[in-house]
Amino acid sequence: MQLRRGDVLDGAMAILDEFGLADLTMRRLASSLDVQPGALYWHFPNKQTLLGALADKILEDVDAPVDTRTWDGEFLELAHRLRLALLAHRDGAELVSATYASRMTNARVRESFATAGRRSGLSREHAELASYSLLYYVLGHTVDEQSRAQMESAGALTRAALSPDAPHSPIAAYDEDLLDGDPVIRFDFGLSLFIDGIRARLKETTHHP
Amino acid sequence: MQLRRGDVLDGAMAILDEFGLADLTMRRLASSLDVQPGALYWHFPNKQTLLGALADKILEDVDAPVDTRTWDGEFLELAHRLRLALLAHRDGAELVSATYASRMTNARVRESFATAGRRSGLSREHAELASYSLLYYVLGHTVDEQSRAQMESAGALTRAALSPDAPHSPIAAYDEDLLDGDPVIRFDFGLSLFIDGIRARLKETTHHP
Repeated sequence: MQLRRGDVLDGAMAILDEFGLADLTMRRLASSLDVQPGALYWHFPNKQTLLGALADKILEDVDAPVDTRTWDGEFLELAHRLRLALLAHRDGAELVSATYASRMTNARVRESFATAGRRSGLSREHAELASYSLLYYVLGHTVDEQSRAQMESAGALTRAALSPDAPHSPIAAYDEDLLDGDPVIRFDFGLSLFIDGIRARLKETTHHP
Repeated sequence: MQLRRGDVLDGAMAILDEFGLADLTMRRLASSLDVQPGALYWHFPNKQTLLGALADKILEDVDAPVDTRTWDGEFLELAHRLRLALLAHRDGAELVSATYASRMTNARVRESFATAGRRSGLSREHAELASYSLLYYVLGHTVDEQSRAQMESAGALTRAALSPDAPHSPIAAYDEDLLDGDPVIRFDFGLSLFIDGIRARLKETTHHP
């Protein structure tokens, strides 16, 4: 039976979800699909393109049409969708961050931010810039939120990890508050700053045309 | 001669700068210092604490006193310092992002953002929230900026990486504009949205006390 591209992607996503990004290798994927590694390379010339396709799959519903009449509502909806899509797969935020930089994933989410920016009344140039700002904020937030959640559930975030035998450790001052607080409240606060910043810029343009 | 903690850190930073985060292993570090791996563990009980100490070293000058009288100038100065500190070492942004989530690095930079937020007139709670927003934005921006720059210099960002043999590839729509534009202009635009957002919030508090 011929190996289909979708089968490879499904297999890769299953490894990602169960074992995480570090364990997602072409060798392991081939073995889990019971094929020779060469069979994968017909669909994906290298691991980067496979990760790009996984990122596309993780993001595929984020830029669906938004049912709101306001530009700020559109930003909020898109940003929340993006956060949830990234959190829905183990290491999803890290995977998308890494592949975004590699150009191996599409830019539809960022472009949907830019479209919302245009709807707000921003110039094309500012809407593009704002789309990057929002994307970077959501990625930065989600990478941290997800790795903290995963480490917490793995029990790695304990003081025991700090050796009492290391006499000159400056690490005593690590962040006590890091795990406190609701990540959604934190996420929304940043979004509201971002949107208020756009609103201020629109007013400026109106007052000094 | 006894191996000092500072020697271990210097050796680790040298490997990071020359070969990158993926090649920074305890085994390789021990070998480069000409010691047995056990000698490292006296100073750093595991790799995570070593990475935390490296992150602290990368960030050590970021929160030095800022020579400005305005809170927005303080935010800008701190954010720019953070960006430059992260870009100064290969994979620096990725290393700090990862260790920040692990609680193995200190929180001084975030706290300096929170202090600037308090100076602006934000409540303690909002200043804390804003400090996370700014930190996440800077990390998200810098991780992407740095990996793109590193991939570009390695020649990895070429269309040749996309196989012409993969018939149903949806990757055709990857981001053409991704490498265009000045990253500093992009970075500053996001900072200005962030600062305008804080300013709007301060006005709100003043008008509706």
